[in-house]
Amino acid sequence: MIRVAIIGASGYTGAESIEFLLRHSEAQLTYLTALPEECGAVGDVFGRFKGRCNLQIEPLDFDKLSKLADVALCCLPHKVSMGFVPKLLDAGVKVIDFSADYRLKDVVVYENFYGVKHTDTANISRAVFGLPELFRERIVGADLVANPGCYPTGAVLAIAPLLKADLVETDSIIVNAVTGISGAGRNPSAKFHYPNMNENIFAYSIGTHRHMPEIEQIASDVAGKNVTVLFQPHAGPFDRGILSTVYCKPKGKVTDEQLLTLYKDFYAAEPFVQICSESPNAKDVAGTNYCHVFVACVKGLIVCFSAIDNLVKGASGQAIQNMNIIFALDETLGLK
Amino acid sequence: MIRVAIIGASGYTGAESIEFLLRHSEAQLTYLTALPEECGAVGDVFGRFKGRCNLQIEPLDFDKLSKLADVALCCLPHKVSMGFVPKLLDAGVKVIDFSADYRLKDVVVYENFYGVKHTDTANISRAVFGLPELFRERIVGADLVANPGCYPTGAVLAIAPLLKADLVETDSIIVNAVTGISGAGRNPSAKFHYPNMNENIFAYSIGTHRHMPEIEQIASDVAGKNVTVLFQPHAGPFDRGILSTVYCKPKGKVTDEQLLTLYKDFYAAEPFVQICSESPNAKDVAGTNYCHVFVACVKGLIVCFSAIDNLVKGASGQAIQNMNIIFALDETLGLK
Amino acid sequence: MIRVAIIGASGYTGAESIEFLLRHSEAQLTYLTALPEECGAVGDVFGRFKGRCNLQIEPLDFDKLSKLADVALCCLPHKVSMGFVPKLLDAGVKVIDFSADYRLKDVVVYENFYGVKHTDTANISRAVFGLPELFRERIVGADLVANPGCYPTGAVLAIAPLLKADLVETDSIIVNAVTGISGAGRNPSAKFHYPNMNENIFAYSIGTHRHMPEIEQIASDVAGKNVTVLFQPHAGPFDRGILSTVYCKPKGKVTDEQLLTLYKDFYAAEPFVQICSESPNAKDVAGTNYCHVFVACVKGLIVCFSAIDNLVKGASGQAIQNMNIIFALDETLGLK
Amino acid sequence: MIRVAIIGASGYTGAESIEFLLRHSEAQLTYLTALPEECGAVGDVFGRFKGRCNLQIEPLDFDKLSKLADVALCCLPHKVSMGFVPKLLDAGVKVIDFSADYRLKDVVVYENFYGVKHTDTANISRAVFGLPELFRERIVGADLVANPGCYPTGAVLAIAPLLKADLVETDSIIVNAVTGISGAGRNPSAKFHYPNMNENIFAYSIGTHRHMPEIEQIASDVAGKNVTVLFQPHAGPFDRGILSTVYCKPKGKVTDEQLLTLYKDFYAAEPFVQICSESPNAKDVAGTNYCHVFVACVKGLIVCFSAIDNLVKGASGQAIQNMNIIFALDETLGLK
Repeated sequence: MIRVAIIGASGYTGAESIEFLLRHSEAQLTYLTALPEECGAVGDVFGRFKGRCNLQIEPLDFDKLSKLADVALCCLPHKVSMGFVPKLLDAGVKVIDFSADYRLKDVVVYENFYGVKHTDTANISRAVFGLPELFRERIVGADLVANPGCYPTGAVLAIAPLLKADLVETDSIIVNAVTGISGAGRNPSAKFHYPNMNENIFAYSIGTHRHMPEIEQIASDVAGKNVTVLFQPHAGPFDRGILSTVYCKPKGKVTDEQLLTLYKDFYAAEPFVQICSESPNAKDVAGTNYCHVFVACVKGLIVCFSAIDNLVKGASGQAIQNMNIIFALDETLGLK
Repeated sequence: MIRVAIIGASGYTGAESIEFLLRHSEAQLTYLTALPEECGAVGDVFGRFKGRCNLQIEPLDFDKLSKLADVALCCLPHKVSMGFVPKLLDAGVKVIDFSADYRLKDVVVYENFYGVKHTDTANISRAVFGLPELFRERIVGADLVANPGCYPTGAVLAIAPLLKADLVETDSIIVNAVTGISGAGRNPSAKFHYPNMNENIFAYSIGTHRHMPEIEQIASDVAGKNVTVLFQPHAGPFDRGILSTVYCKPKGKVTDEQLLTLYKDFYAAEPFVQICSESPNAKDVAGTNYCHVFVACVKGLIVCFSAIDNLVKGASGQAIQNMNIIFALDETLGLK
Repeated sequence: MIRVAIIGASGYTGAESIEFLLRHSEAQLTYLTALPEECGAVGDVFGRFKGRCNLQIEPLDFDKLSKLADVALCCLPHKVSMGFVPKLLDAGVKVIDFSADYRLKDVVVYENFYGVKHTDTANISRAVFGLPELFRERIVGADLVANPGCYPTGAVLAIAPLLKADLVETDSIIVNAVTGISGAGRNPSAKFHYPNMNENIFAYSIGTHRHMPEIEQIASDVAGKNVTVLFQPHAGPFDRGILSTVYCKPKGKVTDEQLLTLYKDFYAAEPFVQICSESPNAKDVAGTNYCHVFVACVKGLIVCFSAIDNLVKGASGQAIQNMNIIFALDETLGLK
Repeated sequence: MIRVAIIGASGYTGAESIEFLLRHSEAQLTYLTALPEECGAVGDVFGRFKGRCNLQIEPLDFDKLSKLADVALCCLPHKVSMGFVPKLLDAGVKVIDFSADYRLKDVVVYENFYGVKHTDTANISRAVFGLPELFRERIVGADLVANPGCYPTGAVLAIAPLLKADLVETDSIIVNAVTGISGAGRNPSAKFHYPNMNENIFAYSIGTHRHMPEIEQIASDVAGKNVTVLFQPHAGPFDRGILSTVYCKPKGKVTDEQLLTLYKDFYAAEPFVQICSESPNAKDVAGTNYCHVFVACVKGLIVCFSAIDNLVKGASGQAIQNMNIIFALDETLGLK
């Protein structure tokens, strides 16, 4: 039985990780931590766990952690995480980090987009990027996994077969995506106050979203050459889900049937990626670790669609998938 | 042309008042005020007014007010309002006050439920309670109107015909109501953070809601004797509307037909109260000043249903209805 | 491994049953049936099961059923179910029936409320009412379980401790409840067309809802005497959940603390009932088999609140709980 | 006072037209028609009009129409409209047609996309395209106005300044849009059944949407040369609004400031188009005839955003704007 700690258990990704670990037959939650003001019985912090989980969320104690856990899901915010991860590793636990702090391999890009100096550059190269469908072999046995961002997960799964097959121009990809509001985290704000967000939809972070360089990095890794991406996110009035619509320019002639075959073959062995015969529905993947994908030729372009749950395949579910791989368990444990 | 100021124009009831006054043929917005940190062009404070209203929201200046306005809609919070109303009256403007500060005639009850000492008791008796369907004659020419609470408006309109006709026991009325979230105001909070409130419904203020004594006061006024009410509010995942379901014990035998006739007669001359032939829908009254009512005998009780828009008939629309009455205009101006 | 069939797998309760059975370690889905026009791969009928369940939904063949299943979850509509249940039993499978056809012990009441002649009266007395928290001992080893209605589950769990302790008058209980729209089933209709239902809330089935006699029957069973209930349902703009607010008249003096103790003791051994310290939230129980309960004294009455997920504790989850009990498994298997 | 008939008053655009005409000081609703099975008092057909409009919706009688109305808003579906419009014109009334039947100037394109033979080709050239911001001078005094589609209105207003100024390539424009569900009309369907659509978002009509050639036609008209557009619509969980995100390739270097100036100048005299300083919010234009626009340079492309209410600026509001222009009234009457 793998013993799992959650660092930063008081946020939405912490809660979602608890939810899935409660169903996991080979892993056991042993230690939950948060800032002192957010501690308490887990059933008090999140009403949905009343009677389902009797742990306390406590302030982090590294000694306790090192005794209680084999692996820590580190659900801390960007910039905060890099202050904790080295100590978590020192405590002898493996770390799956939900923040962006170890995702971007180029420190300069990180520092530009996140506006701070990186304080743990030593571990950046140690970290493997935890998108199993593309980099599974790197994850096996890893000490430190950088769990991907929600948008990059959806966007890159939508286009990876095209990039790998070198079918599209790599300088004109447009990712248009709409996320549910759980992606904005648990802190109240004017934008996401119910009467403001309900019945609303808007674009944000125009030209500046931090997931843009992350998408480019993974896409480039898959393509084996430099890929640039225009990424435009939107926020829509629903809890969970990211629907990505990706526009690519094909290098040559290609048919819908060829694309479908390419995608089915590419993901044939993947338990969590399903190729649809029409546009995916965000609701079909809500609460699951699945990514639904569709692709079609439209007016000279290739348009790719993907749907994921931002909190599951885009965060906690993917972290558990990574955990399963690290520990050589059946990758789908707790997630089917 | 009546010149109208809005004091506290940066909240939801301020915005809704602006919306309806823009459509009013005999009234003109002349002055909008708010706390300094909430000031600015009205189209910047509320995107919906871009190009529709070119006023600035400014810090309140009583001299300016006295020169610019005949009447002030005072959209300040409870407890704050009573610090401003005497000065607004001193500035020579009539006041329609949206807060609870002048609604409760019994200062002790006010001080118990609102937890502060009342600082302007002199004006409590001067204030008339602005529910036109029940107290129209008192409103004509008034200087200070206490605009009713949203819940009391819906609840009392649902049962007034029964109380007036002395058809029900006055010691066992239960008001069960569900409100949309605009009723919680514009300040973000954890409860009303979109991912918390969406897909949720809950009861609140159990046994303690401040509208309970207000409902009792108006109901008693209508009945001509002491009425006690158990009022239980709930918050539901929608923007606008209050659906009230009121359970009353009849004194004697009564039929659905008799009730229907009673209600149709009682409200025959009322432009804004409509008697339905089945349960009202909150959505049918959203954005309007209407109250839809239905009543039926069920298992020995009389059950009354009403639907209003909490921001319109429950606040800004009713205020404008009161304004029209004060100034002897057609009561429906700007509201049809 | 218990082999489970679902009869009527193409509706929402069918889908929800599949969802929970996929997570069940001691039960296995073996056979899914529906009307011919609703058959197909389960991942095509419900996109959420793509890649998660490879069964086909097929037209019902009783021979096949008798070979493939130990128990059938019968998710057919009222009135239809009683045409199938005798044959399912004849096929040698145990039946957990989701319809109302075997819930009401009094055939006359059934025929009045459902408007048809009951065609399988022989099995009514054979059926046990599947509300484990109240009738667990009757369920063990049963052949035919009448799975409770969603509203009765929420309403009766909210007041059972009061009835059992004989603390409240049994002729004046009012159940006011709001349900999410999944309760209306999968067939499109004008009322539940998205642009009509979104941002709406309304009461329905005023004085006539079919769950009223069911609530009365169970409440009377628990109380050991005749209980009458005024039940008023409402439909609100959310997917899942029933929030019940129940008003009862106490027989004598009682305090909040006494009530809390009574409830905590009554449900102390129950895994799926949690006593809250304030109003329950529908969202906290969404997707779970839990019932959250709160109780308080308000103005001379006792007000009880409960929240359940109508599709889980109100249908499919409770069915699996019953299945676990029938087969002497850990009652929480697949449901924690 | 202009006398207005609504043909097909029982749908959402009929209702929305009634709503705005009730507020119009120079126009008067005189005649409402629908299919016989959808007739009745307007307050019964749409609960929101109880007490606000006392007209009956009746089966269409052309004689009656010719006596009662100066102009007819023809809110019939595509393909149906062209069977009625010639007779409406024969009856001596001006027609503002909401369908696509007179929008596309190329009959072959119409017949391809709508799958029927056009039966009133004679009137196609007579019809003017009713997008006032671009073709105002053609609308003055017109007999037959083809009211634009909702998507084309939002999309073309977003890019018209670029096209007019010849700043972008005209063979690579991508319009990605999300609509609220009122756009799907009033007939219930599985896709838009509340529990299916709520919390969902999906793409549809991939490569085949009928508004694609309409967008291309108007864009070409504005640009003065052939423009091709990839248009991809999505449906999101809200009532009203279309958010369009348009990606264009600039011909040369351009700055955000230049774009902002271009847009402000282009729409300087337009009452209903507002240039925002960040992404527009669909909620800000809900219930209004406004179009909010924002534009920015992102990674070598120009990205344009627009928000409209699909039922207002995308249908009924624009129709009334057209009516005001036809009759030489202040264009904003009833719409401010």
